[in-house]
Amino acid sequence: MPILQDVLEEITDAMRRAEDRGRVADYIPQLAGVDPARFGIAVVTGDGAMHCAGDAEETFSIQSISKVFTLTMALGRIGDGLWRRVGREPSGNAFNSIVQLEREDGIPRNPFINAGAIVVTDVVLSGHEPREAIGAILHFLRFLAEDDSIIIDKAVARSETLTGYRNVALANYMKSFGNLNHEPERTLGVYFHQCAIAMSCRQLALAGRFLATGGRNPGTGFRVVSPERAKRINAVMLTCGHYDGSGDFAYHVGIPAKSGVGGGILGVVPGKASIAVWSPGLNAVGNSQLGALAMERLTRAMGWSVFGP
Amino acid sequence: MPILQDVLEEITDAMRRAEDRGRVADYIPQLAGVDPARFGIAVVTGDGAMHCAGDAEETFSIQSISKVFTLTMALGRIGDGLWRRVGREPSGNAFNSIVQLEREDGIPRNPFINAGAIVVTDVVLSGHEPREAIGAILHFLRFLAEDDSIIIDKAVARSETLTGYRNVALANYMKSFGNLNHEPERTLGVYFHQCAIAMSCRQLALAGRFLATGGRNPGTGFRVVSPERAKRINAVMLTCGHYDGSGDFAYHVGIPAKSGVGGGILGVVPGKASIAVWSPGLNAVGNSQLGALAMERLTRAMGWSVFGP
Amino acid sequence: MPILQDVLEEITDAMRRAEDRGRVADYIPQLAGVDPARFGIAVVTGDGAMHCAGDAEETFSIQSISKVFTLTMALGRIGDGLWRRVGREPSGNAFNSIVQLEREDGIPRNPFINAGAIVVTDVVLSGHEPREAIGAILHFLRFLAEDDSIIIDKAVARSETLTGYRNVALANYMKSFGNLNHEPERTLGVYFHQCAIAMSCRQLALAGRFLATGGRNPGTGFRVVSPERAKRINAVMLTCGHYDGSGDFAYHVGIPAKSGVGGGILGVVPGKASIAVWSPGLNAVGNSQLGALAMERLTRAMGWSVFGP
Amino acid sequence: MPILQDVLEEITDAMRRAEDRGRVADYIPQLAGVDPARFGIAVVTGDGAMHCAGDAEETFSIQSISKVFTLTMALGRIGDGLWRRVGREPSGNAFNSIVQLEREDGIPRNPFINAGAIVVTDVVLSGHEPREAIGAILHFLRFLAEDDSIIIDKAVARSETLTGYRNVALANYMKSFGNLNHEPERTLGVYFHQCAIAMSCRQLALAGRFLATGGRNPGTGFRVVSPERAKRINAVMLTCGHYDGSGDFAYHVGIPAKSGVGGGILGVVPGKASIAVWSPGLNAVGNSQLGALAMERLTRAMGWSVFGP
Repeated sequence: MPILQDVLEEITDAMRRAEDRGRVADYIPQLAGVDPARFGIAVVTGDGAMHCAGDAEETFSIQSISKVFTLTMALGRIGDGLWRRVGREPSGNAFNSIVQLEREDGIPRNPFINAGAIVVTDVVLSGHEPREAIGAILHFLRFLAEDDSIIIDKAVARSETLTGYRNVALANYMKSFGNLNHEPERTLGVYFHQCAIAMSCRQLALAGRFLATGGRNPGTGFRVVSPERAKRINAVMLTCGHYDGSGDFAYHVGIPAKSGVGGGILGVVPGKASIAVWSPGLNAVGNSQLGALAMERLTRAMGWSVFGP
Repeated sequence: MPILQDVLEEITDAMRRAEDRGRVADYIPQLAGVDPARFGIAVVTGDGAMHCAGDAEETFSIQSISKVFTLTMALGRIGDGLWRRVGREPSGNAFNSIVQLEREDGIPRNPFINAGAIVVTDVVLSGHEPREAIGAILHFLRFLAEDDSIIIDKAVARSETLTGYRNVALANYMKSFGNLNHEPERTLGVYFHQCAIAMSCRQLALAGRFLATGGRNPGTGFRVVSPERAKRINAVMLTCGHYDGSGDFAYHVGIPAKSGVGGGILGVVPGKASIAVWSPGLNAVGNSQLGALAMERLTRAMGWSVFGP
Repeated sequence: MPILQDVLEEITDAMRRAEDRGRVADYIPQLAGVDPARFGIAVVTGDGAMHCAGDAEETFSIQSISKVFTLTMALGRIGDGLWRRVGREPSGNAFNSIVQLEREDGIPRNPFINAGAIVVTDVVLSGHEPREAIGAILHFLRFLAEDDSIIIDKAVARSETLTGYRNVALANYMKSFGNLNHEPERTLGVYFHQCAIAMSCRQLALAGRFLATGGRNPGTGFRVVSPERAKRINAVMLTCGHYDGSGDFAYHVGIPAKSGVGGGILGVVPGKASIAVWSPGLNAVGNSQLGALAMERLTRAMGWSVFGP
Repeated sequence: MPILQDVLEEITDAMRRAEDRGRVADYIPQLAGVDPARFGIAVVTGDGAMHCAGDAEETFSIQSISKVFTLTMALGRIGDGLWRRVGREPSGNAFNSIVQLEREDGIPRNPFINAGAIVVTDVVLSGHEPREAIGAILHFLRFLAEDDSIIIDKAVARSETLTGYRNVALANYMKSFGNLNHEPERTLGVYFHQCAIAMSCRQLALAGRFLATGGRNPGTGFRVVSPERAKRINAVMLTCGHYDGSGDFAYHVGIPAKSGVGGGILGVVPGKASIAVWSPGLNAVGNSQLGALAMERLTRAMGWSVFGP
């Protein structure tokens, strides 16, 4: 078995030199301004050891990676009742598609496309003011990462709110089918803020740890979710975590993972490691181009696929 | 760890008593006539030990499970070039949907929906007469299962040929986009015969063994595929193996698997076991209802999910 | 040729006795409360003669019939430039479908489905405050009908604003494609008010007169649109005026017409007559059930189809 | 009113000089080889007078224009029962789309898209051998045009049979839904031959005459269909006769018409004239580019729109 730190350094070197870095998301100015040359990676293993390379301490917008954590919270709130309002099947469509909603009466295909994540957020919001729900999500991430310095990037949140017409369309569309309990602008207020959370690879790898360790945070010993639920969240990540590139990611990388348009990817090697990688440039289906490549190299070097020895 | 044989016996007992057994496929008379009370299960573990329960020696029509083996053959023929003619993403549609083909110019989403499997068969047919290609597929299965008694059920093959209008539509549709190299009826001749192969759970578990053991058949020591390719086929099985119920199967069972409308399911526990189960009744999305339930119980009892300890 | 007034009386009698009256629209309380037994019809012929029967003087919510008049206004503003922002083809989908918008990059298929009508309203709004645009639309209808008593039903407008989630979705969706010049809530403010205009059959028949007379209002002699434009608006009404029942209406009735979910239909017999009918119950595709039947009887009795002698 | 013959000569001159002539259909060699410079036009008026210009005596492949005549025959066979097997609504899709069939359980949207025309042919075939049905269609056209020299272009028919994979797909797809009474290859045998009928503009204008004259052939005085049915066929032509360009054709030309990929268009001016035009180059949606333009000029010059004076 190669030495993990060496592998991370080699990958970081290779990624630094890569020429085709994909395209940085430009739908809001705050994301468009990020330096495409950035690359960071962090791995925390089952024994709690942390390994970092590149810009692993620099924060970026986690965007859709937040959906893993709100899914965890929503399942904690209402358990399998969640699946009456959102499906668990890969979408076969772009992340912000509205077509499937019409065909399936306002029930999103899975919790990781935008429509599904908005429903999940609507569950998290129940019984709270939007401000409280945003606070609860932020608190959950700080708790998981054992790091109170994690914050929301207010400029990003504001920008999403001002330009998020398509998400407004999705939320109102589901509301018209009765699949949103709050007024769309309240649920979206929470959603836009959760997407604007800024974290470093180090923080993100720590926050995802419980999914690799059967639901328990090794640092604190605290049980976040049951082993059964950890496995199931991993299953949803593997089948749906990369939008319409999920099959491709499973084929090449072979671990449960969730990407965000900020260029981050959170990966889980059950029983072994939690991985966070960041490279801002995206590929054609909206996932971090070098991030996916780095994940592929890392899992191959370490023999970390869930699909075989 | 519980004793595997005991687990299989308990599951078989429970499944024998189950009242809601789903609906036996009725699109051809030969399948409609199968006794819905049948239930068999077989597991071969990494050390080569075989465990069976119920009707594990009785043969049934493997139908779409054959797609795993023709995919293996096609990758052996043209390698990753296959992915220029068929995708690797879950479909988000029924197994015999034609909509996606129109939207994506005749390129099926994955090799396990019917359209994709027909393209895979078209690759296997290259350079051969249909009769030879059928022979090669049968030979491959006999070789993998180390059992020369495996045969094609001619009555099933004939019946599929006479009534397979939708598959004729799919093949001709792809031909109109230039994504079939042979005349549709030639490729379909092979396809209908591969679906009509009859195997028992014992034979099927043996045939799938190489996917659990890094590509090498432990019995003969023969390398069927590279470890890398075995992992990748497993990845496609996990994301696409149960049509529009793949996400659900991953969530509840958590292993790569492929179902067929004959009521069989082949499952792979990487590094540990190959599993075959058979119960003829199907659920709403066309997968064996009790077969999936039996798989869920088995993997839970044995701690065999790929998604966590 | 039968005597028109006799025909109208006979039709009104028959419709009064009809048992299957369709279902009154219930998406807002103000519409749901309308008495389904109401039936009115009014015809103004080329010579300016007005014939009425039934509840022809009672006002109802014109809803989507308003789209004919805003289309006329928008064409007056920017002419054929309008067709860069909205198509002219029948939709093959329900009136409030969002699917087509995704497939065609935010360009609605025609100006009579909701999405298209919202774009048309966005054009009418240009250079004005919403309040002014609403006033201009109301003024145009009063001018055409020569009747200053026409008003907007404020309760209907308020109700549409509070519950129009799907229209909010459509507007925001088009905004995300750049096909809306104003903020969605401003354009929708005008749209919800134009739909809430209340008119009687008599008023509506008068307002539609210019489309039957080559663009000139015979009463005032004022040219509303050119003969060419009148014909073209009629063409759009015939191919797209009844949502996904336009082909059926053309087949059975055979004249350009536009329906609204308030139960009204405005029909045009080029060169001969303008017809308004009202019966609140709708058929499965959202058009007035008895209204369409009455139109069919009337055009057949008078020999008024555009499709033959 | 201008003199018709002068108008036809002027239009022919202008079309002869046109530079952008569209693209000749190339899906079979026999069509691809046609000279794009050809242009012919023929008009037969209500009094039986025939006016021709350009290549009006030269024959071309009528292709989908044949669907008007088989629709007439099928309605003669089973009347309105036909509408249980095919719809009457514009499709909102390309002429050979298969998507709509899946969504609507094998019922084509209208008789003028390929799928619908195949169902219509299936009705015409009932009780006959394919050879007889082909003979009956040919006989009907000879009778209508009073011209026994009309023949089927065998090379075109053969070529369609060899390469018509998409039509084979459509027919088998509908068969799988039970909406075809004969084996697909038998129905398609008739369909491919009807499309291969070769006619001149003069012959075609004569054959379409009955639709302009209330169903009676003025030449022979023979009643082909009732006035009611003539109007209804005209209605289907207007709403569905130009595939996904039907709305556009109605807007610009304003008369019922049916196009074919051979470059022909048959137009009907109810009560006044039957028009046939031919120019082989097609526009983006598959209709004759100069044919549509010539129709627009002609109807405008003669004041022949159904939509207004």
